[in-house]
Amino acid sequence: MVYEMAHIDVIRGREADFEAAVSKAVPLFTRARGCSGVELHRTVEQPNRYVLMVKWNTVDDHMVHFRESADFQEWRRLVGPFFEKPPVVNHTEVAVG
Amino acid sequence: MVYEMAHIDVIRGREADFEAAVSKAVPLFTRARGCSGVELHRTVEQPNRYVLMVKWNTVDDHMVHFRESADFQEWRRLVGPFFEKPPVVNHTEVAVG
Repeated sequence: MVYEMAHIDVIRGREADFEAAVSKAVPLFTRARGCSGVELHRTVEQPNRYVLMVKWNTVDDHMVHFRESADFQEWRRLVGPFFEKPPVVNHTEVAVG
Repeated sequence: MVYEMAHIDVIRGREADFEAAVSKAVPLFTRARGCSGVELHRTVEQPNRYVLMVKWNTVDDHMVHFRESADFQEWRRLVGPFFEKPPVVNHTEVAVG
């Protein structure tokens, strides 16, 4: 199990639109191969900064199978207009806990 | 419910020692006021970069009550020697999911 951590800065004033678009996009993730959950976190200290956390079985489920799918294009169509700059994406695995 | 997200870069070569210290420190969090869970995540793309995620009822449970406790001093005593630089800490709340 790995966690995609996508750090997304949203154009100020478009936060509610972005959150609505992510809500609409949730099924794109939940039906993806190897995906077992998605959560969008809003940063308390900087409310236009978000972390999208997606649980994947493997990094390839995200970076190969999802990124090359039509659903990824749909994801970007829905949420891309609200990005202030390109997201910064990495992956984590639980070390303790 | 808020999530503390502490981004911690560890001195290269000391990752195992740091993870052992965090394991030892888990009870400092689980017994803290308002804390309902702690996980340490290791970054796949940069293995000396970690994210400590702690669930708190409120930001003050972390930043006031925990930070001013003897257990916070003990936490820093256990893990501080492995920090490459001061951690970057913020808080998030779930917006979607």
